[in-house]
Amino acid sequence: MDARATVEIVEVGPRDGLQNESAVLDPEVRAAFVDRLVATGLRRVETVSFVHPGRVPQMAGAEEVMAAVARTGPSGERVSHIGLVLNERGLERAVAAGVDEVNLVAITTETFSQRNQGAGVDDVLAATVRMLSAARAEGLSTTVTVSAAFGCPFEGEVSTEQVMRVVREVLPAEPDEIALADTIGVGVPADVRRLVAAVRAESDVKLRAHFHNTRNTGYANALAAVEEGVAALDASSGGFGGCPFAPAATGNIATEDLVYALSRSGIETGVTVEDLIPPASWITEQLGAFEAPALLGRAGGFPS
Amino acid sequence: MDARATVEIVEVGPRDGLQNESAVLDPEVRAAFVDRLVATGLRRVETVSFVHPGRVPQMAGAEEVMAAVARTGPSGERVSHIGLVLNERGLERAVAAGVDEVNLVAITTETFSQRNQGAGVDDVLAATVRMLSAARAEGLSTTVTVSAAFGCPFEGEVSTEQVMRVVREVLPAEPDEIALADTIGVGVPADVRRLVAAVRAESDVKLRAHFHNTRNTGYANALAAVEEGVAALDASSGGFGGCPFAPAATGNIATEDLVYALSRSGIETGVTVEDLIPPASWITEQLGAFEAPALLGRAGGFPS
Repeated sequence: MDARATVEIVEVGPRDGLQNESAVLDPEVRAAFVDRLVATGLRRVETVSFVHPGRVPQMAGAEEVMAAVARTGPSGERVSHIGLVLNERGLERAVAAGVDEVNLVAITTETFSQRNQGAGVDDVLAATVRMLSAARAEGLSTTVTVSAAFGCPFEGEVSTEQVMRVVREVLPAEPDEIALADTIGVGVPADVRRLVAAVRAESDVKLRAHFHNTRNTGYANALAAVEEGVAALDASSGGFGGCPFAPAATGNIATEDLVYALSRSGIETGVTVEDLIPPASWITEQLGAFEAPALLGRAGGFPS
Repeated sequence: MDARATVEIVEVGPRDGLQNESAVLDPEVRAAFVDRLVATGLRRVETVSFVHPGRVPQMAGAEEVMAAVARTGPSGERVSHIGLVLNERGLERAVAAGVDEVNLVAITTETFSQRNQGAGVDDVLAATVRMLSAARAEGLSTTVTVSAAFGCPFEGEVSTEQVMRVVREVLPAEPDEIALADTIGVGVPADVRRLVAAVRAESDVKLRAHFHNTRNTGYANALAAVEEGVAALDASSGGFGGCPFAPAATGNIATEDLVYALSRSGIETGVTVEDLIPPASWITEQLGAFEAPALLGRAGGFPS
């Protein structure tokens, strides 16, 4: 597939960005964060997670967040709010809360699957395929995120075949999108090319990619994904983020830093670095953080 | 040129890494840093700068550093110590101090040239070409670094033609190497490809590249450079660094993070992440820094 001239940004700050921070923000603060992001022109936002609040207290009150957020952008365009769904109860809640999309999860390795989901790879896959069909029946858009596709925090190397085994099980259920996730930030561009090529050899499903900058490879991976024709990239305002169940999985790639790199590469996203910096500064204050992991807020854009 | 299977790392931590830190380290501490880096297997180190100590006090005592450092690696291999040289007086000092290589500078824009060198582009170029010939006559290896090749802190955009004008003036003096430097960390891989192609259209001179991660594009640029056949990459232990005369030019790419990305991409460097982390931790302590900009020391290598 040819390198793209445009790419869709999926803003995951309100979910992946906040779920691993020690500060627990109230639903109204999280909704205000979402609204500030939507005001920049972002059109897909992972707004909530329907995980049990006992497991991830940072994500409690998803229903209140969904009830409070704007459903259209500044020019009246529809905004697509995504809810992360890990089980059937979560799917019921997502439907009731009125999300536009659900993000379902499949996992490549047994150990990570047990730690993250409390069930093995096959059981998680079967549940994901069931939930996918149910979500489609409710008229929701669906993504399946293949977690730990670039490496497992517990088992190390993850083979192309382990990823493709998951992808092959999911494809017949017709998700709108499959996301390849480097949950722990270990991948390099060569891995991105290898995995995208493997999926493309068997399907033209829409691809999304999710990178963490844990080892400073996240932005290189994102640019490689765009070059390989991946249609959508996850990024987190300010670069906050991590996985509560994966040790040292800090730092989603930051939306503003990603948009800087894409924009200087001639790739359109519909948003600007200048507009993205204020919400990142705002959420940094709300979290009581000394500074965001993102660098653009400190360095500024291209000098002029 | 084909993508490379090996790349030479030029460790610039003792020079570019330390020159912009508020802590001023004694020559013996800087020499001990160099020795720790050499012990990891690094074979080219930018060990000293022969700038006037009144301008950059962090680099005072270059002669003492050179007198103290090991000239061979752990297995007896020759180590090439590089001195940054900005003027004729600096070149005399470099020769007397016994460096193996000199790194000379050419600058693409008038404003940056005046601020960094106190002279215009043409005058700096003429002096660089004279010093290059003199250094060659002394038997030293020579590099010319084209500063601000990807953007200027004062003038903004730098055209391919501005870079090539400098390169064309330097080539007849036969430097062993030309380094393309993103002094302020604004470039993206598309810029790397554009500039390498422009040089390659006119010369097969050995290319080296110098990236800062100021806006989180440095590692993507480094990987792109290797893909384009660039033979040597600058990196700084711990990711410290910056330019005293370029605002917000923080953060060389870190040696350990770069080696992680290269090694996971199947590219040999002769050094390992595991060996590189201890000297980075050591210099972080010496600088009294809370933590290094590098991420590998915090995240650890690929899980196993």
